[in-house]
Amino acid sequence: MTAKTQTLAFNARPKLTAGASIVGKREGNGPLGRYFDKVIDDPKMGKDTFEKCESAMLSEAVAVAASKAGMDIFDIGVLLAGDLLNQLVSSAYAARSMPVPYFGLYAACSTMTEALALGAALVNAGHFESAACATCSHFAAAERQYRYPLEYGCQRPPYAQWTVTAAGCSILRSEGDGPALTHATIGRVVDYGITDINNMGAAMAPAAFDTLLAVFDDTGTCADDYDAIFTGDLGRLGGEIMRDLCRERGVELGQRYSDCGEMIFSREQNCYSGGSGAGCSACVLNSYILGKMYKREYNRVLILATGALMSPTTSFQGESIPAVSHAVILENDL
Amino acid sequence: MTAKTQTLAFNARPKLTAGASIVGKREGNGPLGRYFDKVIDDPKMGKDTFEKCESAMLSEAVAVAASKAGMDIFDIGVLLAGDLLNQLVSSAYAARSMPVPYFGLYAACSTMTEALALGAALVNAGHFESAACATCSHFAAAERQYRYPLEYGCQRPPYAQWTVTAAGCSILRSEGDGPALTHATIGRVVDYGITDINNMGAAMAPAAFDTLLAVFDDTGTCADDYDAIFTGDLGRLGGEIMRDLCRERGVELGQRYSDCGEMIFSREQNCYSGGSGAGCSACVLNSYILGKMYKREYNRVLILATGALMSPTTSFQGESIPAVSHAVILENDL
Repeated sequence: MTAKTQTLAFNARPKLTAGASIVGKREGNGPLGRYFDKVIDDPKMGKDTFEKCESAMLSEAVAVAASKAGMDIFDIGVLLAGDLLNQLVSSAYAARSMPVPYFGLYAACSTMTEALALGAALVNAGHFESAACATCSHFAAAERQYRYPLEYGCQRPPYAQWTVTAAGCSILRSEGDGPALTHATIGRVVDYGITDINNMGAAMAPAAFDTLLAVFDDTGTCADDYDAIFTGDLGRLGGEIMRDLCRERGVELGQRYSDCGEMIFSREQNCYSGGSGAGCSACVLNSYILGKMYKREYNRVLILATGALMSPTTSFQGESIPAVSHAVILENDL
Repeated sequence: MTAKTQTLAFNARPKLTAGASIVGKREGNGPLGRYFDKVIDDPKMGKDTFEKCESAMLSEAVAVAASKAGMDIFDIGVLLAGDLLNQLVSSAYAARSMPVPYFGLYAACSTMTEALALGAALVNAGHFESAACATCSHFAAAERQYRYPLEYGCQRPPYAQWTVTAAGCSILRSEGDGPALTHATIGRVVDYGITDINNMGAAMAPAAFDTLLAVFDDTGTCADDYDAIFTGDLGRLGGEIMRDLCRERGVELGQRYSDCGEMIFSREQNCYSGGSGAGCSACVLNSYILGKMYKREYNRVLILATGALMSPTTSFQGESIPAVSHAVILENDL
């Protein structure tokens, strides 16, 4: 480690022993539907409000992941969670029913990898034997907080993305089966001056690119060293921008690169440029990606979740959109 | 460390080498005025909006703290920051101008100690040589986000608190002068069913009490082992509730206990029950408390910042107020 690295190396190789994903109906009907643990048909899960549903999804994702890891919720060493709702209320109200130490984190749609990075650091150092890392988002709750209530029936531009209704949770443990979380690369905040809040992909792609270069520099790896590379939720347009930025720097991502936002919905689902939201990379990682690692179809994977850090207030005040991308490397023991 | 501890022990004893505090005029006129690094007279610091002022205060607190530690901002290993504004925009926009890895954190008014806990864990493990841990709040920005715009001239009940306009930053380093951050105890989310959003002290006191007992259990210490014990921003009423809760359990805090929210304003300043806000414990810690440690008037201090985790949305939806308190122990080398 040099003084200026962005990368944490976890020599004790904490293991991602279990992952869980709970998604909404639209996500369940998408191309990855069969990989998710649970699809909820009712967009409120029987609760009064979308926000309470989002929090309940997060609670359930943690409970399912703990159960898959052979643990009771009470056995979890520490919970690291965050979400898109103001004051991270989905996470706080979910944490209220879990008597475990709780860290609230916010990296917008890059919260899953921020949680994994810090969870791995805590488990790697022996501070906790296990860490639950979780995040979520809900289409209807996000729309009314960030844009307009659904009842307004607003039109969207074709490059807009669709906030995923999903929660994901990973259980990291000091011992156990599953891929090791070997490195985490912590993003810097990058702002290319995008002001269109419908164009998140363009705002976030430079952050993913900045972190990708840091991963390569800090770990001495290149694209060919990974079986697969995923960004979080750049969507179709943002994914193209990411490929272009890489190509300009001589990095050819090729077929090994996919974006979780592109993967989660088919074009026929009319979700414009694809999925977004903190739950997007969280549910794809904790279902499809982790499944392929458990089956050893992938042995080394790089995941760069991507977050746009503006708020409606900063947009009203004329600010551009800063973005961040935190990366984690997962590696099967050979 | 047992499996169920809430406490991280930092055996490499990362040092709190410098702290900085920037406060508003009212805070500057309070009993601690002479301890702060800078008092801003203009509540917007020449910016367009209160929100932009809040972010600028945070940037300046980081710059001043780095400078006191003999560092350039570019030398900072990692920035851990959060604030009360939706999507933590004060922190994100401050981080945009700092080319360093950035973790966004949210524990409401307990964010300062969450940042110190995680910053200490990263420096203790050797992931970074230094960490800047920072948070802030602004009276006018908080009022219009959480309650009403100032122009409405709303009346407050006598037990209400006054959000502090302040930013604080601590620099943790693996080597250097200053007290060691020896332990951090991570709070659980506690909810005693308080629904009055003017009564934060009552909502947060049980969280501080829960974490205090965890500190004593996990570290084998008792109140007498500390030269001083501080809570973050319980205010006068919350501070009394904290003393009562302790007394019921046979813990007598005595004169060594103070609340930063009680300390920052005098009764004559008409701030009702006292100060609150993420900046409250941040500016008191990084001025008065740290100053007393540097002068060795205190050699071992326990700080329990306290956060209320609701949002206006959850309050409108009839939810009670969950709270969390993260604690850190600072100790001079003898």
